[in-house]
Amino acid sequence: MKQIRIFDTTLRDGSQQAGISFTVEDKLKIAKALDAFGISYIEGGWPGSNPKDEEFFKQAKKLVLKNSKLAAFGSTRRKGITPSKDFSLKAIAESGVKTACIFGKSWDLHVKEALKTTNEENLKMISESVAFLKSKKLEVIFDCEHFFDGFFSNKNYALQTVKAAAQSGADFICLCETNGGMLPSDVASAVRETVKEFPNVKFGVHTHNDSGCAVANSVTAVEEGCVLVQGTVNGLGERCGNANLCSIIPALQLKRAFSCVPSKSLRKLVELSRYIDEIANLIPNDSKPYVGQNAFAHKAGIHVSAVERNSKTYEHIEPDLVGNERRVLISDMSGKSNVVSKANEFALGLGDGEKVKQIISTLKDKENRGFQYENADGSFFLLTKKALGSFKPFFILKNYRVSVEKDAAGNIVSEATVKLDVRGKEEHTVAEGDGPVNALDNCLRKALIKYYPAIQDVFLTDFKVRVVNSDANTAAKVRVLIETSDSSKIWGTIGVNENIIDASWQALSDSLEYKLLKSKK
Amino acid sequence: MKQIRIFDTTLRDGSQQAGISFTVEDKLKIAKALDAFGISYIEGGWPGSNPKDEEFFKQAKKLVLKNSKLAAFGSTRRKGITPSKDFSLKAIAESGVKTACIFGKSWDLHVKEALKTTNEENLKMISESVAFLKSKKLEVIFDCEHFFDGFFSNKNYALQTVKAAAQSGADFICLCETNGGMLPSDVASAVRETVKEFPNVKFGVHTHNDSGCAVANSVTAVEEGCVLVQGTVNGLGERCGNANLCSIIPALQLKRAFSCVPSKSLRKLVELSRYIDEIANLIPNDSKPYVGQNAFAHKAGIHVSAVERNSKTYEHIEPDLVGNERRVLISDMSGKSNVVSKANEFALGLGDGEKVKQIISTLKDKENRGFQYENADGSFFLLTKKALGSFKPFFILKNYRVSVEKDAAGNIVSEATVKLDVRGKEEHTVAEGDGPVNALDNCLRKALIKYYPAIQDVFLTDFKVRVVNSDANTAAKVRVLIETSDSSKIWGTIGVNENIIDASWQALSDSLEYKLLKSKK
Repeated sequence: MKQIRIFDTTLRDGSQQAGISFTVEDKLKIAKALDAFGISYIEGGWPGSNPKDEEFFKQAKKLVLKNSKLAAFGSTRRKGITPSKDFSLKAIAESGVKTACIFGKSWDLHVKEALKTTNEENLKMISESVAFLKSKKLEVIFDCEHFFDGFFSNKNYALQTVKAAAQSGADFICLCETNGGMLPSDVASAVRETVKEFPNVKFGVHTHNDSGCAVANSVTAVEEGCVLVQGTVNGLGERCGNANLCSIIPALQLKRAFSCVPSKSLRKLVELSRYIDEIANLIPNDSKPYVGQNAFAHKAGIHVSAVERNSKTYEHIEPDLVGNERRVLISDMSGKSNVVSKANEFALGLGDGEKVKQIISTLKDKENRGFQYENADGSFFLLTKKALGSFKPFFILKNYRVSVEKDAAGNIVSEATVKLDVRGKEEHTVAEGDGPVNALDNCLRKALIKYYPAIQDVFLTDFKVRVVNSDANTAAKVRVLIETSDSSKIWGTIGVNENIIDASWQALSDSLEYKLLKSKK
Repeated sequence: MKQIRIFDTTLRDGSQQAGISFTVEDKLKIAKALDAFGISYIEGGWPGSNPKDEEFFKQAKKLVLKNSKLAAFGSTRRKGITPSKDFSLKAIAESGVKTACIFGKSWDLHVKEALKTTNEENLKMISESVAFLKSKKLEVIFDCEHFFDGFFSNKNYALQTVKAAAQSGADFICLCETNGGMLPSDVASAVRETVKEFPNVKFGVHTHNDSGCAVANSVTAVEEGCVLVQGTVNGLGERCGNANLCSIIPALQLKRAFSCVPSKSLRKLVELSRYIDEIANLIPNDSKPYVGQNAFAHKAGIHVSAVERNSKTYEHIEPDLVGNERRVLISDMSGKSNVVSKANEFALGLGDGEKVKQIISTLKDKENRGFQYENADGSFFLLTKKALGSFKPFFILKNYRVSVEKDAAGNIVSEATVKLDVRGKEEHTVAEGDGPVNALDNCLRKALIKYYPAIQDVFLTDFKVRVVNSDANTAAKVRVLIETSDSSKIWGTIGVNENIIDASWQALSDSLEYKLLKSKK
């Protein structure tokens, strides 16, 4: 199998995405994860550009990388000076890395508009900068910025920039689709012609997703001869994002005869994707190819029954090849087979068809009121148990009260009281918290802990709220989704109400009841 | 320009997406919007499959469509019966539409595994079903399900299914990439060969996004000769979604010489995209090509200054061609040019460089504490005014108190009290609400309305909460984003605190202060 180098730029180009701001510690964690996954190159940042990246490279000297080479980014020298006087190039040389990735202009429009210099000076900037870094014994990857736009507007000049970098000793020349507007047939023809022109050059490709074709364009470029692919985990990046490595790697490795990472790494692709989303504090996109929570989720009854007989019928790959799993979705469009399949997952015997009908009917009623169970397995489990008549409550709510007060000095106090019936005994507790939901949670635990010590190791790990307009005739409702974990499992629960506190109460109490049901077994 | 028919299946295949559940009224609204946009075909649903779709087709008879044809979906007849006895085919014929879209199997694996019948019977099912619908004077689009998988595993049989449909009079034959796993070069070769085999057939293409290549595959199929494209608005659909029409239409129309919709419609693409997200109650994906809020958003200072000189430098199309706009993002990576550009947008004179530095420093401090201004223009405006020293508060908070009580009967009461200093006078108000934030909002308005009648027409339109972990050493904070509108404008404001009530208070009070500042002018 032909080896394709994967060059990750999550830490540099990926961090340009709106809403992302990695700390130095975040960047170190991500570098470790990428190395463990088996990525060939990790672009750490731009040493000359900001204090955060400088600090990163300083600390990165202590990183022990097993599989990856760390690369520093920068640009060709400024016009009219020698490379040794260029602050950015010097910063790369002094950053302690063994690989440099520098970009230069391949589109004459940019030479004129952005650099405000001549085409000749730009060629010198490229060749002298590459030669300078090579003289410092660095491996050099040269990024031809806007190569494709340049190729289609002034092909001769675009190819001259490639030649300048190649003759000065660049190890790889990466063709960049900087504006992201190309379609696959554009990329195919430009790469084909360029590779033919320079048969001895090792080419890479770097694409952006402004046309929604970044993955397709990258794969196409490899099919046409590129041997290195730049991209980011989850396609993070400015505007519409960079090429998504989580789609490119499995495409090249599972569908074409290329090797990018060890195949046991590929089985950790979902883990890598979710880890990066977590560090970036992003809500994972459930529809993401290969790694999304819904990538192998089936809703139509007809698909569920077929896929359970033969996965090839509605799945393009085996989900576990990338560490994902098949999911059966429960919704008001679900047929009987979805509900039965889900119940089997929970090892709940549903018995006769009447029970299934009853669950579907409860489900439809709940969904009309704004509930959705696709991310709330815990609540769906409880709903099923209740519909089967096999649920005995662990506690009954009598009343609660929550208050938040802020005084003139800005001090805030959140307090909750809860009155419960637990196994026939009244428990009346009060607790404070960081906020009203935390106070309610503390109060509930305080009342239950002596009866149910199993809740000790249960932690709320995520909390999300949004308005749902399930019915135009009533006040807006809010939907609270809570994610809870113990030492071995994560589960989701849901609450819906016009009142955010009561919606939170529902999700909180479902979350503990689910835990208690599970630990009873 | 060659005409390409756009066939929208948002109402049928799109509604299979996890979390989506359109009401009949939603479906009628979407159909009207698609018609107004100029889509050629709107697939309304599957008349034989569920009561909701039946009701839709009944009500759709009253729809007056100017540009679109309504299509009904279904499958070929069941095995071993005549078409006139088939419930699904009869339901299409009786649904009142003039266009039918039926699918049949093109992959012999499915004939065997799913239909459990012979290859010969499947060919009869195709030809008899098409002929039956043609005899009812319907236009017929035949969907070759799993065509590409079939083509690469038993080409001869896949082509026979095309032939069966063509010879029975199908008006269009749509090649379906049902499992979504193909890459563009697969689609190119299969379409090229199939079109060559049947030069007189009008072909369509239907793709799914499981490889992240649905848009690329659709555009490639058109380049190879297909004249109809099936897809959904925003790429809604099961698993990783269907082909996204919001990316395909501008690619074909702006980058290739094809015509899909009137060019004045194209300028309403963003509006269509957001309208469908709103009906589906989905958080818009800001990174979506062409239509996403960040599709033309620039964060890197170097890009901002270049793009303001010449948009072609970092934008693949003019944003207003699709009804989008350029955005300059404010973040701790922003250089001076971003802050100045944003301030110009607000018509705030920043004066000397010291002021800009001061704003950047305030910004960095706020971002360290979990604030993000990319969706909170209102709060950023206030921050800038405050940093410039030109902000005079409209009110000063003395204290607030919020309480929520639920009694044993399940009744919930939310009450808030607020004490403010408004223009030197103390206002102390109390109000109830649907929940604690609504009670606080009511209370604040009650205190302010007599001083500032402009707040009369201000409404809270969205409310989102999520946990942010801005600093690992402290308790989890929540970030509240509020969207507010008056009769002419929408603005976002933000609050961050460990306490959800106080974070909401910050966003609420920013929201009203922004309105008051704006209406003062």
